[in-house]
Amino acid sequence: MAVYTDITEGDLGAFLRNYSIGELLSYKGIAEGTENSNFLLHTSTGPFILTLYEKRVEEADLPFFLGLMDHLAARGISCPLPVHRHDGGTIGTLAGRPAAIITFLEGMWPRRPTVVHCREVGKVLAAMHLAGADFAMTRKNALAVEGWQELWAASRERADEVAAGLTQEVDADFALLEKEWPDHLPKGIIHADLFPDNVFFLGSELSGLIDFYFACNDLLAYDLATCLNAWCFEKDMSFNITKGAALLSGYQSVRVLSDAEKAALPVLARGSALRFMLTRLYDWLHGPDGDLVVKRDPAEYIRKLRFHRSISSVQEYGLS
Amino acid sequence: MAVYTDITEGDLGAFLRNYSIGELLSYKGIAEGTENSNFLLHTSTGPFILTLYEKRVEEADLPFFLGLMDHLAARGISCPLPVHRHDGGTIGTLAGRPAAIITFLEGMWPRRPTVVHCREVGKVLAAMHLAGADFAMTRKNALAVEGWQELWAASRERADEVAAGLTQEVDADFALLEKEWPDHLPKGIIHADLFPDNVFFLGSELSGLIDFYFACNDLLAYDLATCLNAWCFEKDMSFNITKGAALLSGYQSVRVLSDAEKAALPVLARGSALRFMLTRLYDWLHGPDGDLVVKRDPAEYIRKLRFHRSISSVQEYGLS
Repeated sequence: MAVYTDITEGDLGAFLRNYSIGELLSYKGIAEGTENSNFLLHTSTGPFILTLYEKRVEEADLPFFLGLMDHLAARGISCPLPVHRHDGGTIGTLAGRPAAIITFLEGMWPRRPTVVHCREVGKVLAAMHLAGADFAMTRKNALAVEGWQELWAASRERADEVAAGLTQEVDADFALLEKEWPDHLPKGIIHADLFPDNVFFLGSELSGLIDFYFACNDLLAYDLATCLNAWCFEKDMSFNITKGAALLSGYQSVRVLSDAEKAALPVLARGSALRFMLTRLYDWLHGPDGDLVVKRDPAEYIRKLRFHRSISSVQEYGLS
Repeated sequence: MAVYTDITEGDLGAFLRNYSIGELLSYKGIAEGTENSNFLLHTSTGPFILTLYEKRVEEADLPFFLGLMDHLAARGISCPLPVHRHDGGTIGTLAGRPAAIITFLEGMWPRRPTVVHCREVGKVLAAMHLAGADFAMTRKNALAVEGWQELWAASRERADEVAAGLTQEVDADFALLEKEWPDHLPKGIIHADLFPDNVFFLGSELSGLIDFYFACNDLLAYDLATCLNAWCFEKDMSFNITKGAALLSGYQSVRVLSDAEKAALPVLARGSALRFMLTRLYDWLHGPDGDLVVKRDPAEYIRKLRFHRSISSVQEYGLS
């Protein structure tokens, strides 16, 4: 939830002269996205989203992210389309920051995901994995195991302040993940952040995916494990196996998991939970007080990590 | 800038069944308004603003605020219109808070007001004063002199921490204002918070006024003095007499000020600057750290107060 940068109507007007999207009628900073400043624009041709990329997004990665949206949309995945400028590009500069305009996607993200939502997310995730197969660009996952180690190095000393015993638990996770990480599994384009606030629905119909700013090349099944974490736990942190089953069967109705992928789900889910626990822990310990970024408590992912450590078979995720 | 309360699509859907505004397509928390939670809704019939009233707004005052918008709009003042529910009312409950839907006003507030903007604001302020004359409801100004005294009592002890000598300066202001406050001047409905972020323009045309949640019955010329403070100072806190002249002549092109109102402008401007200095000082000293409300530095209004104390004639405001 953030608008970091405000913009003047004069600067925005000048920026918009690079596009053919009509007359500007209004713009409002919106409380979505924790990494960038987002504005909802109304122009005489309709609504658009203007994004100003703040420091956490590397400018050099923008062609990958925006190109991916173009690529996926052309293959039938509903997602925002970057609006092209008169010069053909999709990235400009506004208020000293890289900035892009994308089409506005109607729909609402589910604050309380249901089994139906989970099935639909599984299906679209698999469809996205297939659609990404012939995308020409690549991007390394900045938050893969080595990235986690850096975050951990910066937080380890104070981890027990946040949860007693956490240092020891996470050291053991790293020891296991370094040994067992299933690097041989199928790779491709992953969304890497497909949380409920990045998936829009109109009623029970999925209307689109947003926020591709963590997308990268990595294990496809890792993306699915992230969704298990993000969609299938209840508010009390209990795992809802019915939702897990819906997510996994939705996924497999479009792309069948190999036996090796299935067998790796516990270690992938553990790795994914560790990744989100570590970014939250880092922000919790290092984020400035009073920042507009709402700090998310790492406790949620500490509990999810503990669940995955306890798994004795993949059937516990609802895999049939 | 704030969204205090998030809402689920289920709760919002149920709330919207009280209205005939079509199918909900999306809603986004917007970074406008410091007192309430505001959402921009898209429905199949167009855009709307949904406001959840947070603790600073008294529920008992809502019929006045919403009734005033209806009244002013019917008299040609462009402002949002409260959308009426099937039961005829304009106020419901959502997420445990009073909530209303108003029409969406296109336009942008000027981050850098020009002389043209100042003239237009003067005109619309006077037109609003005339249009409010036959509004049947009344509301006392909660932030009139007695309200200021309460704020000061709660901040006085620590005022010198914020600016050396402030305690003595403000005590002297109160002594003067209690003696010279021109309570006999014409009264009526005032906006009481007509800052640039509450006035929308499309190019140089004023497209409407928003945020009537400080509106009340008080001295009309006090409202004008608030605009002098809000619109006619430069970023370096110098008073721009050309902007002052434009605001005042714009106002007088619609409603002529009496000689007594003109003569009272310095004391009214001093009182208004004191009012905004005091609310900012109070929030500065008492607001919780890390609150989503962005604290505004009282220093801006301390400097404006000093300017008004130095005024030797109303010509210094640009009054011709």
